Amino acid sequence: MSVLNIALIGPGLVGREFLRQIAQHQKRSSGIQLRVVALATSKRVVVAGSSEASVDETQWRDSSDPVSELVSAASAASGESVVVDCTASDAVARQYPNWLAKGLHVVTPNKKPFASDLALFDAIKSASKSGRPVVLHEATVGAGLPILSTLSDIVETGDEIVKIEGILSGTLSYIFNNYSTTDAGAIRKFSDIVNEAKERGYTEPDPRDDLNGMDVGRKVTILGRVAGIRLSLDTLSIENIVPEPLRAIETAEEFMRKLPEFDAHFAALNAAAAAKGKVLRCVGVVDPAEGASGVRLAEYDASHPFAALKGSDNIIAFTTRRFPNPLIVQGAGAGAEVTAFGIFSDVLKIAKRVGYASSA
Amino acid sequence: MSVLNIALIGPGLVGREFLRQIAQHQKRSSGIQLRVVALATSKRVVVAGSSEASVDETQWRDSSDPVSELVSAASAASGESVVVDCTASDAVARQYPNWLAKGLHVVTPNKKPFASDLALFDAIKSASKSGRPVVLHEATVGAGLPILSTLSDIVETGDEIVKIEGILSGTLSYIFNNYSTTDAGAIRKFSDIVNEAKERGYTEPDPRDDLNGMDVGRKVTILGRVAGIRLSLDTLSIENIVPEPLRAIETAEEFMRKLPEFDAHFAALNAAAAAKGKVLRCVGVVDPAEGASGVRLAEYDASHPFAALKGSDNIIAFTTRRFPNPLIVQGAGAGAEVTAFGIFSDVLKIAKRVGYASSA
Ligand SMILES: NC(=O)c1ccc[n+]([C@@H]2O[C@H](COP(=O)([O-])OP(=O)(O)OC[C@H]3O[C@@H](n4cnc5c(N)ncnc54)[C@H](OP(=O)(O)O)[C@@H]3O)[C@@H](O)[C@H]2O)c1
Ligand SMILES: NC(=O)c1ccc[n+]([C@@H]2O[C@H](COP(=O)([O-])OP(=O)(O)OC[C@H]3O[C@@H](n4cnc5c(N)ncnc54)[C@H](OP(=O)(O)O)[C@@H]3O)[C@@H](O)[C@H]2O)c1
Repeated sequence: MSVLNIALIGPGLVGREFLRQIAQHQKRSSGIQLRVVALATSKRVVVAGSSEASVDETQWRDSSDPVSELVSAASAASGESVVVDCTASDAVARQYPNWLAKGLHVVTPNKKPFASDLALFDAIKSASKSGRPVVLHEATVGAGLPILSTLSDIVETGDEIVKIEGILSGTLSYIFNNYSTTDAGAIRKFSDIVNEAKERGYTEPDPRDDLNGMDVGRKVTILGRVAGIRLSLDTLSIENIVPEPLRAIETAEEFMRKLPEFDAHFAALNAAAAAKGKVLRCVGVVDPAEGASGVRLAEYDASHPFAALKGSDNIIAFTTRRFPNPLIVQGAGAGAEVTAFGIFSDVLKIAKRVGYASSA
Repeated sequence: MSVLNIALIGPGLVGREFLRQIAQHQKRSSGIQLRVVALATSKRVVVAGSSEASVDETQWRDSSDPVSELVSAASAASGESVVVDCTASDAVARQYPNWLAKGLHVVTPNKKPFASDLALFDAIKSASKSGRPVVLHEATVGAGLPILSTLSDIVETGDEIVKIEGILSGTLSYIFNNYSTTDAGAIRKFSDIVNEAKERGYTEPDPRDDLNGMDVGRKVTILGRVAGIRLSLDTLSIENIVPEPLRAIETAEEFMRKLPEFDAHFAALNAAAAAKGKVLRCVGVVDPAEGASGVRLAEYDASHPFAALKGSDNIIAFTTRRFPNPLIVQGAGAGAEVTAFGIFSDVLKIAKRVGYASSA
C-alpha cells in the first residue's frame, strides 16, 4: 500500500472540508493511503508521531512558527509529501520555493503565490520545472472546475489561445444573473440584489471587495500566466464597478446605506443593454493582444451561454485555433465542498505522478 | 532529455493529424521528446532503425501481421512506450491486455475496447490496475473535451453521480440544433436537414448509422463504466429514431429518397415540444438507477444549456452530490484536430506519470 503524506496549513472552511473528504476516502479506498502528518494555523501546530497513521487532534500546541514546524515534519516523513496550503496568506506563499527545493509537492487554492509579483511566480515555476516536485493549483480559478488543467492541455499540446473569457466570481455571477435578464419585467434594484447576496453570505464582509474586480483580476492574472502571458495585477485593466463616490467610504454599513443612490446609474446601463437584446455580465478576459486583458462589465446576447448562467455558477470559454467555437466549462466555482474537491483531485494527480496506485 | 516512444496503429484522418501535432511539438519543446518508433495499417508497417529518431516513411513495407511487428518494435525500444490505437477495429482492441502485460501504455480514440463485452473491459482494467502501465482514452467520448478526466476526478474523490446527460454525437447535435428551435418560423423539413448534414460530410455514409443511436450508446456505455456502472450496449435502452419502415431498406440512397415521407412524423414531435416552449435533443444518459441509462429523444426548456447549443458541438452535464447544479463541458466533440488534441493530451499525461519533464 502506497502512503502519501499530507501536511495541511489552514484548516479553515476549505481545509476542514478537504480533511473530511480524505477521511471518507480512507474508508472506501484500497489504493493510495493519505496520511495527515501535520496541521498548522497561524498560531498552533499538531504533528503526527512516527507510529501514528495521522495526526491526533487532541495534541494541538501553540508555536511561534507553526508553518516551519509543519514543513519539518513533512520533510522528515518517509515517502513523498504534499504541503496543502489552505490559507490566503502572502507570507505563506513566499515560502513555496523553499519547500519545493526540499522536494515537497504543493497543492493550493491560495491565489497569492500565482497572482502576486512575477518574481515569486518565476521562482515557483523554476523550482518545479523538471516536473518534480509537482505544484498544482486548480482550485485557484473556479474551485473544482477543470479550468487550469484544460488550459494546460491546450497550451502544452501547441494550440494557440485566441481569447479566454469568463465569469469567474460566484458573487458577481449571482449579482448580474439576477440583476440583468432579458425579461424586462423581472428587473429589480441593483442595491436590493447586492443586499440579498450579502445576506446569503455570497459576498465578502464588504461587498466592495467583490465589486472592485480585484478577485477576478487575480484569476485573470493566473489564467494568463498559465497560458504563457506574463500578466500583472497592477498593469491589468480592471473595471471597478463601485461608483466613484462610494469608494472612499469607511464602513461596509455606510456603503450599503448609500448604494441605493446609484440604482439609477446601474439601471441605465442595464436598460442600454436590454434595448439591444443583451444582458450585462462582469467578466475576466485574457487576450494575447497586449493591454487587452482585464476585468470589465460587458454586454452579451441573450443566446450567449453567459446570458443563460444561473445562481452563482462560474463559466469560462476558451477560444483557440483548434476551438474557434469555444470550449466551455461551467458549474459551481466557489464553496468549500467543490473547492476541496479541486484540491483533492490535484493531490490524487500527484499520487499518480509519483507512481502510486490509482484508487479506481 | 527524456524520450517517450510512440507506436501508432492507423495513420488515417485522426492518426495523421496526431503525427502532425507531435512533429510541431518537437520543434517547439525543450522538454519531452516523442519518438515515433513504428506505424502500422492493416496491411503495412514501418519501423524505425535503432539509430533513427523516428520512422522513415519511405521504408513502409507489406506485412502479414503489421500490428504484431509494431508491438515488437515498441517493446524492444529503450525507455517507456505508448501504443496509440487510431483504428476503429475490434480485432486490434482485443490485443490491449497483451500489450499491457508487456508493459506498454495505451492511448486511443477507439471506442471498441471500452464499449464491447465487459470481459474485455475488465481484462484491460485489471492489466492496468496498479496504475502502470497507463491506459487513457479521453478521445473516445467528446474528442478532446475534458469529459472522462473530469468524470474520473469526480469518481475517485468520492463524489456521487446523480445523473450524466449529454449531446454526444456531433451529427445528431447538428441535426437537432438546426431542426428544433423555439423560433417556430425557422423550422425546416427534417429530411432537408439530414440531407444538408450528409452533404457537409457530418454523417456516416449511411445516416442511419448516426440516427440509430448506437454511436451515442457506445459513449454512454463508456461513461457508465468509468463511473463504475457496468453498462452493456445490448441491454441499454436505445431509441432508434430511424422510422421503423425505413430500417430494413438496403441502400443509403433509397433511405434518403424515402425519408421525406416521414417529415410529418418528426414535425409532430417538434410541434409538441414547441407547444411547451421546448426543443428536441437526442441525448445519452447515464443514470445510476437500473435500466434508466440509454439514448433518447428528449425535450428541453428553451433556457436549458442544451437548447442553446450551436453547430455540431457536444455538451455534457454531470449532476453529482457536490454539483447539484451540474458541472457542464461543451465544445467541438468531433473532427481530426480536436480528437488528436485529446490523444496528445493523454500522451503527455503518461509522460508526466512516468516521471518525464513537463514541456511547459
Ligand atoms: N471558500 C471558497 O469558496 C474558496 C473558493 C476558492 C478558493 N478559496 C481559497 O481557499 C483558501 C482558504 O479559504 P477558506 O474559506 O477556507 O478560509 P478560512 O476559513 O478563513 O481559513 C483560513 C485558514 O488559514 C489559516 N491561516 C491564515 N493565515 C495563516 C498563516 N499565516 N499561517 C498559517 N495559517 C494561516 C487560518 O487559521 P488561523 O486564522 O487560526 O491562523 C485558517 O485555518 C483561500 O486562499 C481562499 O481564497 C476559497
Ligand atoms: N474522426 C473523428 O472526428 C473522430 C472523433 C472521435 C473518435 N474517432 C475515432 O478515431 C478512430 C480513427 O478515426 P479516423 O477518422 O482517423 O479513421 P480512418 O481515417 O478510417 O483511419 C483508420 C486507420 O486505421 C487503420 N486500420 C483499420 N483497421 C486496422 C487494423 N485491423 N489494423 C491496423 N490498422 C487498421 C486504417 O488503415 P488501412 O485501412 O490502410 O488498414 C487507417 O489508417 C476511430 O476509432 C474513430 O471512431 C474519430
